[in-house]
Amino acid sequence: MASTTRFYEDFSIGDRFHSGGRTVTEAEIITFAHHFDPQAMHLDAQSAAQGPFQGLIASGFHTMGIAWWLFLRLGLVTDSMFVGLGVNELRWLKPVRPGDTLSLDVVVAEKSPPKNGRGAITFAHSLQNQTDLTVMTYQSVNLILQQPR
Amino acid sequence: MASTTRFYEDFSIGDRFHSGGRTVTEAEIITFAHHFDPQAMHLDAQSAAQGPFQGLIASGFHTMGIAWWLFLRLGLVTDSMFVGLGVNELRWLKPVRPGDTLSLDVVVAEKSPPKNGRGAITFAHSLQNQTDLTVMTYQSVNLILQQPR
Repeated sequence: MASTTRFYEDFSIGDRFHSGGRTVTEAEIITFAHHFDPQAMHLDAQSAAQGPFQGLIASGFHTMGIAWWLFLRLGLVTDSMFVGLGVNELRWLKPVRPGDTLSLDVVVAEKSPPKNGRGAITFAHSLQNQTDLTVMTYQSVNLILQQPR
Repeated sequence: MASTTRFYEDFSIGDRFHSGGRTVTEAEIITFAHHFDPQAMHLDAQSAAQGPFQGLIASGFHTMGIAWWLFLRLGLVTDSMFVGLGVNELRWLKPVRPGDTLSLDVVVAEKSPPKNGRGAITFAHSLQNQTDLTVMTYQSVNLILQQPR
């Protein structure tokens, strides 16, 4: 995927990208919950059916992982990612349910001046389901390499 | 763990809690990376050894999942969690490596006025490794149930 990599200089504020989809299975929701978020609403379909969401929903941290995977699959930072610094304003807006297919919109929101061959870029992410409902938003801040000289 | 549950009224600003530990294995780091963060620094020990961290490091989203699991294990919200609203100012400060044992400090940072039997509480989380280095910080915002009447 080297051909799709963009380095620090190649990103401009306002650049927008749209990912492919990823479908969430019940098995994946339950497995993730066992490891990281063992609450009945993510683990136990019968109990979740009685809860406020009337059925099993994905852990928000699972949803975050799926969004990140979709971002990487764009191939934009395959050879230019130095490291992640953090995430701002992560918001879970709608439940994610078994069978949902999620896709990601990403916009380049901010660039800090580069230093030592890399610079911080803030990406604004918005995750949609198959009915175009936005289920989650967040901003990631990543150190992106400058073009090799 | 019902006895350790705290409802909205039971949390006061400044309350502090400290979790037990969880040790991160190389197998878990690689499995998580395959599913959500397939970058060489999280997937491929040989390639990671040549990289900026001189070895395999955990995905920051994996580290986040471990922190959340440690928070839940405190039992504070076992019967009082309504739902998560979001996460603010997540920062990855130091790499997490295979064999590291992580533990969590949590402080009640903010409470919003309750409505409909629940209220938002902001928890400030700080994750340490076995040498007391802070590896990650973030705030979670959660809707917590009021005491049942």
